Amino acid sequence: SCGGSKSAFTQSGGASYYADKFNGRKTASGTTYRPNKLTAAHNTLPFGTVVKVTNPRNKRTVKVTVTDRGPHAKGRVIDLSRKAARKIDIVDAGVAPVQLKVVRAAKR
Amino acid sequence: SCGGSKSAFTQSGGASYYADKFNGRKTASGTTYRPNKLTAAHNTLPFGTVVKVTNPRNKRTVKVTVTDRGPHAKGRVIDLSRKAARKIDIVDAGVAPVQLKVVRAAKR
Repeated sequence: SCGGSKSAFTQSGGASYYADKFNGRKTASGTTYRPNKLTAAHNTLPFGTVVKVTNPRNKRTVKVTVTDRGPHAKGRVIDLSRKAARKIDIVDAGVAPVQLKVVRAAKR
Repeated sequence: SCGGSKSAFTQSGGASYYADKFNGRKTASGTTYRPNKLTAAHNTLPFGTVVKVTNPRNKRTVKVTVTDRGPHAKGRVIDLSRKAARKIDIVDAGVAPVQLKVVRAAKR
């Protein structure tokens, strides 16, 4: 009922997280990957987009900013920073199903 | 015995391959991903580097050109094009251990 607004971007699929070797490396957006920031790699959303990531197994959520590109593997939709992965408790599993919802578009 | 040559870059770890949705998309090097080309994503080797990828389980090998960046997940070292994945028979497994060896450096 918000006139003119587009439907929100949502997506389901697998999440993984960055290996420790990426600490301090450049992301595709030009920023430096820091494991304690709440960032993520997504293949199509503009850099700066804020996405809410939900782990349906435990209902935990985390908001991350898209700063990088990836993942390539089938069924995978997002790679989370270490901190973001910890917040939704997927570090031990390594990969887990998640739901994504864009909560803030990138600044132009 | 080649005076002045450096030791070859070799690496072991997991390989995966590109999901079909990447067909026709731009890679990090600016080329377009085509599933029938022998290309790969690697996180550090310069674009244009040719890498021999060996599947030790079946001794199959394939030579791929690095055109993209990735993967992020722990233990993963390369994402192969669909054709390259087929050549070393990892399509059904999805992920498999491989050995990498640089066989031609990128042109400057």
